[in-house]
Amino acid sequence: MTYILDGKKVAKKLKDNLKGEIENLKNKYNRVPGLAVVQVGNVAASSIYVNAKTKAAKEVGINVFDHHLQDNIKQKDLIDLIEQLNYNDEVDGILVQLPLPKTFNEQEILDCITPKKDADGFHPINVGKLSISQKNDENLLIPCTPFGCLLLLRELDVSLAGKNAVIIGRSNIVGKPMAQLLLKESCTVTIVHSKTVEIEKICKSADILVAAIGKPELVKEDWVKDGAIIIDVGINRVQINQQKSKIVGDVNFEEVKRKAFAISPVPGGVGPMTIACLLRNTFISCKKKLLV
Amino acid sequence: MTYILDGKKVAKKLKDNLKGEIENLKNKYNRVPGLAVVQVGNVAASSIYVNAKTKAAKEVGINVFDHHLQDNIKQKDLIDLIEQLNYNDEVDGILVQLPLPKTFNEQEILDCITPKKDADGFHPINVGKLSISQKNDENLLIPCTPFGCLLLLRELDVSLAGKNAVIIGRSNIVGKPMAQLLLKESCTVTIVHSKTVEIEKICKSADILVAAIGKPELVKEDWVKDGAIIIDVGINRVQINQQKSKIVGDVNFEEVKRKAFAISPVPGGVGPMTIACLLRNTFISCKKKLLV
Repeated sequence: MTYILDGKKVAKKLKDNLKGEIENLKNKYNRVPGLAVVQVGNVAASSIYVNAKTKAAKEVGINVFDHHLQDNIKQKDLIDLIEQLNYNDEVDGILVQLPLPKTFNEQEILDCITPKKDADGFHPINVGKLSISQKNDENLLIPCTPFGCLLLLRELDVSLAGKNAVIIGRSNIVGKPMAQLLLKESCTVTIVHSKTVEIEKICKSADILVAAIGKPELVKEDWVKDGAIIIDVGINRVQINQQKSKIVGDVNFEEVKRKAFAISPVPGGVGPMTIACLLRNTFISCKKKLLV
Repeated sequence: MTYILDGKKVAKKLKDNLKGEIENLKNKYNRVPGLAVVQVGNVAASSIYVNAKTKAAKEVGINVFDHHLQDNIKQKDLIDLIEQLNYNDEVDGILVQLPLPKTFNEQEILDCITPKKDADGFHPINVGKLSISQKNDENLLIPCTPFGCLLLLRELDVSLAGKNAVIIGRSNIVGKPMAQLLLKESCTVTIVHSKTVEIEKICKSADILVAAIGKPELVKEDWVKDGAIIIDVGINRVQINQQKSKIVGDVNFEEVKRKAFAISPVPGGVGPMTIACLLRNTFISCKKKLLV
């Protein structure tokens, strides 16, 4: 029997814990965490993510400050907004929904978010701290998707040390921080990507395979070792016919399920974990501020 | 014929170039770069490194500010010194020779160095910038040893993209930044370490093998693929007999040389490159300041 890594269930557990902790914070300090959600333009996928994040934040008792901007605003205007949010005492986390329209310099925007309110963990100083830290310190602001993947892996109650982990994709959002996290768990870590030669063969050597490359169902049965653990980060919309589309991951779930020891589905795997980790980061920022 | 990666020769070329650039800077701005070298205590190996760095800096025309402190000074005193150096207009680079005596919190000290004068590239914000950058941007402050390794590799005039690179060791000083650099060169990157299972087998799959684990002559002939490129970062002192000792790398040079396409010797390989890259970082910091 293959173990299905039910992200929805694990995320619910995390959110329930968080709800309790936020309740405690409220009782003790008369203050709840605040999350500013910044969206530019109306890309459908971004709206879906923003709505899901907003809903989840409210459920656990986080105040949401919604900033939905037209896509004709200027880089400078967006920076001004972030500066305001940096100084707003009620805001503990700032989330800028990516991708921004192509006219923006995304990294410059992310660099403006004060590291203390960096709910996504993308600021260079937080990226650096994650790299330097010897352990996966729960008080760091860690990028949400890879940290969500790690928490899913921990559900398995399998020792990660010494396992061969292969990560497909080298993005700043998933691949690179995922490598840092798994390295701290003492995995042997390999990053493969579009320029990799014999990618299938390398994936087949993996005890833990994390697919984060954004190619629908790229990972097939013969890419996977018997008994491997598969984490699917992909969220790809594919057309079934002229009318219908569906969401699939970077892994061919039905095929790979037959060989894997454990696998995360899409949807309902990594996605809900990402959101739970965003809420967690917002809570941590708030708590750190109150405890100073 | 195995190609010997002559770090002394390559470093000399780099230093000669740098000397010319510093001369230009001096003519144009009436200013030369300044490097503060901070050593705590009298560990023999540290004194050797500090002397070599000081000598090389002076050779290329960098002003050296020498701060040799007793090992009974306090964390606070060292931080005060660094704060002074941060504000000293003549200092462009600050080098704290590691390791510090065990009584010090090393990372706290490194975090105090203003990122602009971070000659070693160990500050979290510089670590983060290196991770985030899409290319190996020559204007970043990159940790000296791994950047030196990359410059040695580039001497070979072999395309790095798609090569399997295996790095032995996951330190913040070498292993992790080396992975970032090789990933940006589009290598497929694997980090192995003390917890890795079947380390020999993984090393044997490497087209490029970087050994940075501090174990004398760990890498043997049967760890290496025919035609691989070997970079040896290790500097280990071993006793030959009661009177004599010698310096060896992490690679058994004589054995591995027979199989490698190219190999860096110890001494005379990575060591001189590390120093050249330290000088380069100091120069870059100075230039950036003057061009503002």
